[in-house]
Order: sequence, then C-alpha cells, then structure tokens
Amino acid sequence: MTTPRRQIKLGAFLMATGHHVASWRHPDAQADGGINVAHYRKVVETAEKAKFDLVFVADSPAGWPRAKDREAQQRSSQGAHFEPLTLWSALSQVTSHIGFVATASTTYEDPYLLARRFASLDHLSGGRAAWNVVTTGADVSHNFQIAGHPAHADRYARAEEFVDLVLDLWDSHEDGAFPRDKDSGIYVDLDRVHQLNHKGTHFSVRGPLNVPRPVQGHPVVVQAGASEPGRRLAARTAEMIFTANQTLEDAQAFYADVKRRLPAYGRSPDQLLIVPGIFPVLGGTEAEAQRNHEEIQNLIHPAIAWEILTRHYQGRDLSGYSLDDRAPPLPESTELNKSRLTLVSDLVSRGNLTLRQLYLAVAGARGHREVVGTPEQIADAMQQWFENGAADAFNIMPPVLPRGLDDFVAEVVPILRRRGLFREEYEGPTLRENLGLQRPENRFAARRGISAAE
Amino acid sequence: MTTPRRQIKLGAFLMATGHHVASWRHPDAQADGGINVAHYRKVVETAEKAKFDLVFVADSPAGWPRAKDREAQQRSSQGAHFEPLTLWSALSQVTSHIGFVATASTTYEDPYLLARRFASLDHLSGGRAAWNVVTTGADVSHNFQIAGHPAHADRYARAEEFVDLVLDLWDSHEDGAFPRDKDSGIYVDLDRVHQLNHKGTHFSVRGPLNVPRPVQGHPVVVQAGASEPGRRLAARTAEMIFTANQTLEDAQAFYADVKRRLPAYGRSPDQLLIVPGIFPVLGGTEAEAQRNHEEIQNLIHPAIAWEILTRHYQGRDLSGYSLDDRAPPLPESTELNKSRLTLVSDLVSRGNLTLRQLYLAVAGARGHREVVGTPEQIADAMQQWFENGAADAFNIMPPVLPRGLDDFVAEVVPILRRRGLFREEYEGPTLRENLGLQRPENRFAARRGISAAE
Repeated sequence: MTTPRRQIKLGAFLMATGHHVASWRHPDAQADGGINVAHYRKVVETAEKAKFDLVFVADSPAGWPRAKDREAQQRSSQGAHFEPLTLWSALSQVTSHIGFVATASTTYEDPYLLARRFASLDHLSGGRAAWNVVTTGADVSHNFQIAGHPAHADRYARAEEFVDLVLDLWDSHEDGAFPRDKDSGIYVDLDRVHQLNHKGTHFSVRGPLNVPRPVQGHPVVVQAGASEPGRRLAARTAEMIFTANQTLEDAQAFYADVKRRLPAYGRSPDQLLIVPGIFPVLGGTEAEAQRNHEEIQNLIHPAIAWEILTRHYQGRDLSGYSLDDRAPPLPESTELNKSRLTLVSDLVSRGNLTLRQLYLAVAGARGHREVVGTPEQIADAMQQWFENGAADAFNIMPPVLPRGLDDFVAEVVPILRRRGLFREEYEGPTLRENLGLQRPENRFAARRGISAAE
Repeated sequence: MTTPRRQIKLGAFLMATGHHVASWRHPDAQADGGINVAHYRKVVETAEKAKFDLVFVADSPAGWPRAKDREAQQRSSQGAHFEPLTLWSALSQVTSHIGFVATASTTYEDPYLLARRFASLDHLSGGRAAWNVVTTGADVSHNFQIAGHPAHADRYARAEEFVDLVLDLWDSHEDGAFPRDKDSGIYVDLDRVHQLNHKGTHFSVRGPLNVPRPVQGHPVVVQAGASEPGRRLAARTAEMIFTANQTLEDAQAFYADVKRRLPAYGRSPDQLLIVPGIFPVLGGTEAEAQRNHEEIQNLIHPAIAWEILTRHYQGRDLSGYSLDDRAPPLPESTELNKSRLTLVSDLVSRGNLTLRQLYLAVAGARGHREVVGTPEQIADAMQQWFENGAADAFNIMPPVLPRGLDDFVAEVVPILRRRGLFREEYEGPTLRENLGLQRPENRFAARRGISAAE
C-alpha cells in the first residue's frame, strides 16, 4: 500500500466584489455582490464544481471603521454586507460538499449563542461548518454594551477562554445522546448530556448547549492572527491558520514556528494546516497579466490612496507629501493588526518605495502574497511553497468577483490537477474529511472512558 | 371597483415533531425533526405549496428549562434543535414566497447583532423575514453574562428600548443609499447613511447598521405576549400579535382591546393583525377525530403528566394527589407566562377538572384553542372567529409533523378556499405584500422630508 500523495487544500476567500480595494469599479465586478445572494451562490457553486475545500468570509461584527475623509468614505465599498452565518446557512442548501468558514468575533459575540449558531450550521450543512476565530482588531465598541475596545492582550485572554468554552459546549451532548425511542418513550440519554458549570474570568456558563453535538464533532476551528498570542491560541486550539506572507523565507519561518509549537499541546503537526493567502492576477502572457493588474490599480481614486496611506501611518499628517515622494518609515505598531503592520514595514524598508508604490502594494492583497502572471506561473508559485515547508493549503483571494475565481478555476486548477497536486474528487461529504482532519473525541465521553468509536 | 374580500392569513407554527407534548412518539412523527433539515424543508415546502403566508418557530436562547424529575427529563423532546435564524436562512434558498418568522429574545440577545441578522435574512430571502419579539419567560441566565433573569416589568422595559433601536438600525441606511456608480467611483451616498447615537437606559449604540436597509424596509415585527406590557409593546410596535384564546368571547375581547389601543400610537387597526393559535385534530368523522386525539393523548407518559402539572402548580408538592383527584386551584401568577397561566386557571375553575383532565387539556395546544373534528368543523371554527372580530389570521399548530400539516393542507385549506376565505395565489414575493402590510417609511428619510415613494 502506498501512502496517498499529499495534496494542496484550497479555500476561496470571497470578498463581496473581490479583494482589490477598487474591485467593485471593475467592469467584470458584481458591484452589489456583498448583498446579492445570487452572486454568492454563483461563486460558491464555481468553487464547489472545482472541488475547493471551502469558501471563507471575513467579518467585523459592526462593519469596518469608515475613512475619516468624506471623499474616501463615499468611495469605499466596505459598508454593508450579509452576516456570515446567515449567508452560509442559506448556501448550505444549494451545495453538497464545500465547507463554509465564517469569521466571528470572540470580543463582541456571546459564547453560548455563537456555539449554538455554528452547531446549527454544521447540522444544516451535514458537517461543513468552520469558525474563523478573530478578536476584532478594529474598535467597534460604540455599537455594543462594552466599556471600550479591549487591548490586544485582553482580547486574546478572552479569546482563549471563549474558544475552550465553545468546544466544551459542542461536546455537552455526546454522540448518540438522543435515542428517541418511540416504544419506550426515552428521548434523551441523560448520561450523555453534560453541564459545564464553567466559571471563568470572563464567562459563567452552565450548559448544556441547546443543539446536539455537531456532525463533525466540532466545526473546524480556524485562526487568523499571526501575533504571538495569536500563534499560541492557534497552536493550542486551531486546525487551520490563515496567514499573510510575502516571501518563501518568511512563510517557511512562520510554518516552522507554528508547527513546532504543537507538541507542547499534545498535538501532531498534521493537526494544524498552514494556509497562506494568495492574490492571483492572471493573464495569458506575463505582459497581459501585468496589464490586467495595471487596469485595476488605475481604478483606485486618489482619495482612497491617501486613506490607505493615512491608515498605515496611523493618522499621521501626510499633507506635506506627494505620492511620488519616498515613503517615510512607518510608525511602531500600536493596536493595529501587528503582524500585518510588520509586513508593510518590511515592504517599505525592503523596497525603498514611494508612497504611490506603497499604496499600490497593499491595495490588492492587503499584505498577502500577490502573484501576477500566467496560469503556469501561479501554479508554480503555489507548488513551490507547498513543497518547501511554507503551506499546506492556500486561501485564493480573487482580485475581482466573479471573474477572478472563474479564471482561476478554468486556468490554474487544471494545471494543479495535472501535476497531481489537487484532488479529482471530494474525499467525503464533510469538511473534516476533505481537509484530512480527524473528528475530535468528545471531552466528556473521554472522561467517562468512552472512545469516539463507540 | 369592488373592495377585495378580506381573507384569512395563515401561518404554520412548526414545532420540531409537532405541538403535542408526546408528538415525537407518534408513528407518523419524524422523531429527530428538530435537527433534521430535510424534515423542515418538506414541511415548509408543504406550507408554501398551499400558499401559507408564513412559517413560525418558537425559541428560547438556551433551550427550555428541564423537568426537575429525571424520569420526565429523559422523556422530554425539548432538548436540542436548530437555531431559528440559521434554519430559516437555509430554507430561504429552496422557497420563493413563504415568510419566515423567527423568534428571538430581547433579554438575551444584543440589539445590533440581532438587527443585523434579521436584515441579512430579509435580503437573503428577498423580503420574507419576520421577527417574533419575546422577552424570554424562562430563566436561562445561568448560560449568559447577566446578573440573574430580569423580572417581567424589567424585561418589557428593555424590550421597548430594544425594539425601537432595531427599527432605527434597519433605517440607518435609506433606500438607495448605495449608488455604486462605477464611472464616478461613488459607492455610497453619505447623505442617506445615518448614525443613531442612541444612549438609552439599557443600550448605547452609534450605528449605522452594517447591512443595507432590508428589502421590506423592516422585517415584519411580531409579538406574542398578552400581558398588559406585552399588549402595549405590540400596539406600539408590532404588526402581528400571536395569541392564545380558548373561547370566542375571550378572543373577541382580546381582539377589541388590542385594536382599540392602536390610535393612541397614530396607527390604524389594520396595521396589527391578530393571530390566534389553533391546534387542529382531524378525522374523517368526528368520532375518528376523537380517536386520533385519544391515540396521541395516550402516548403521554405519567412522568410527563406529573411534570406538566408540577410546572403549572409552580413546583407545589402534588404527591398527595392522584390523577383522578379534582384539580386544586392554581397558585397566583408569579414570573411564569402570565397570560397563559390565566388561561389554565380559567380552565380549572370553568371545568371543575380532574388533574388528568387538566394535563390532557394543556398537553397539546398549551393553552391554545384545540379543535377536534372533521375538516368542515375546523374550517367552521376558523371562519366563525375570522368573521366575528376574533382573528385576522391563524397560526396552525399541527399536533404531529409532518402528518398534521399534510392533512390540514389536503383537507381544510380547500374548504377555506371554496368559501373564498383563503387565497388562490400569493399576492407578491414579500411577506408584507402577502399580509397586506405597508412597507414602512424610513424614519431618517422622513425627517429629511423624503417620501417613501421617492
């Protein structure tokens, strides 16, 4: 018996109109994509037909903070979109195999209600739900009954407790807890139902959850913070980590660092998949790809360009600069997304960039890896990272939707498949089966000495 | 031009396996219905094929309190089910006209997150969402970060502020707030986006919402509390009120009382539909209907019977009684659902019931009107209330699912239709259009002097 060849796992990271900041203005973009269910259905069906593992949406519980400048505000497409769990629940009924990753905040959500909704989605989808755990970097506290936006460390302390609590709630009914035997009249086996009686620093929750154990045991847990507390949380609890890296060396260092942390938590390296983002700009030739890239870069209005720069300079007055001036050093990170800021700092120091080059460098992939080239070149770029300890999977970030995903599926996926790097068929109906992740044992059953196989 | 004849509006109130406490044991029941999406899809499709206005689910954010007695606990089917908003989002994509009423709590949910999810469902469904506002009677505070379960009056004070806030959030983007003009690069018209800057007793919320204005302007607001504060809240804010009445006289009194309250809030009587529940037990003959009723009543285990009684007697020790003893007077209402308790009290004092008769009387419809009879008799019962100032609509509560809804649709709906009492075709694609409820003006646009027609 030969070991099956390790293959790339693929996610489609779907921003409403695409990942490029000006995507909505592109002729191929569905401008109202963020609130158009037919649009999402089309792109999710495209991803499923291509046998992608999953679709992925970002989220902030109360939207993203608006630009300060009114001119930039009215040109920003980050206003108002579907809520992820309702969107993915809707699309669960018109798909059969693809997984659904919904981002949700441990800072602004309630753990019982969140555990319940993800468990519900996992049942509705037949085992295809995943939770992308975020602590919400942007301050949206003015919309909630919370005394200000917590600091980075406080957010992660709360997240650690929150994630454990959610995992416990998902286990609060064992598999088989509901015999529902009509003859005897026994509906529930009380020996398999557990109270948590959790009393922690941030939460008191008795349980059990009011949803049976999810089909996957637990929806897949994804994490997307690359800060030190983010890596610790991921190494302890997550099964995928979504990450932004620009160079093979940085990606390898991140990959090795995170995988190295797992044994300390009794976990093996294959229990956490490393998933860099990739922003592919395709063309039939390299020159055409470059022209496609320029076409969309040229759609960025100067007000948006200055808003991007101001955000990265954390509000510093840049009025003395022109776009063709050399970019001054970036300020030290405060509460902004730290890992992302480091990437941008590196870009500035590495590239000796002008301000124009700087905003153009972050306008598309927002710190993720951009690859502008032919389908072969993009496949090469993925294969290189996959085979050199830098990635187990990729989150594909189409610049413009639906076109960017259509092109990737039509032109890059067949190359990966020819090289034996991507599946021909789904391995199974659940997200875990496709990702090669084990169904977790139930914590409470384990304490009772019952194996998962029973 | 003749005024179109006033017709009955119909909801299907779907409890997982049916409304009868022993429904799950019935041979025709889908015992795992509460967590089986194929089951819900089948019953919702049945309701839509019959041109029902809406489907309706009850909810408690953390399940219902368990029976104290272990024997009753393991025989209760109220354990673990789908979460309503994810369930209805899922079914929005396999239906086209039927409305979705999801119950959600003003005591345990957050107003911004709740407004967002209902707005999202309204967009996903093309304007078919409705929110059944409840304050949650049962104490589930042990699962949440809240200092105990608030008293009735406090729950309603919070609900008043909560509902207003949600309505404001739904209006925080005006219709047409998103021109998304690719040529000019203007995505959002900032004159049509509004902050609330709400600072109330219970909530501080800046806004705007991160979802565009719902398709219906507002999802339809439903209310289900018949206490004095519940009636006030409904008269001021709701568009349907779901109610439990046993007799024509009580129903007429309730109907008149609620309708009479509307002018004080600048509303007309047709802006709030009165929707009694009805629990129909069908048979080809009256005798067969009685046998069908007895068949399911006989499935109630004695432990469940005593649990029902204990709950109604608010924990009083009934160990000195047998089921054939005359029911002692019920204690005064405390924090239990007050209007429901009055109904049961009336049953006891009116009927001179034994304890067995008492639990049998509440085991099915839980205080709602039971009609056991032929299809003609059930249609008569509905027509009588509809034509005599007791109902604008009915929430049909099938004793057992899916069978109870199948039978109602096959046998009662055609009679209502022959009598001209129920529609042949949907009036439109949104729930509001079918219910004959106007699309509300936007509060902020109205202040700017812009009419809804613009």
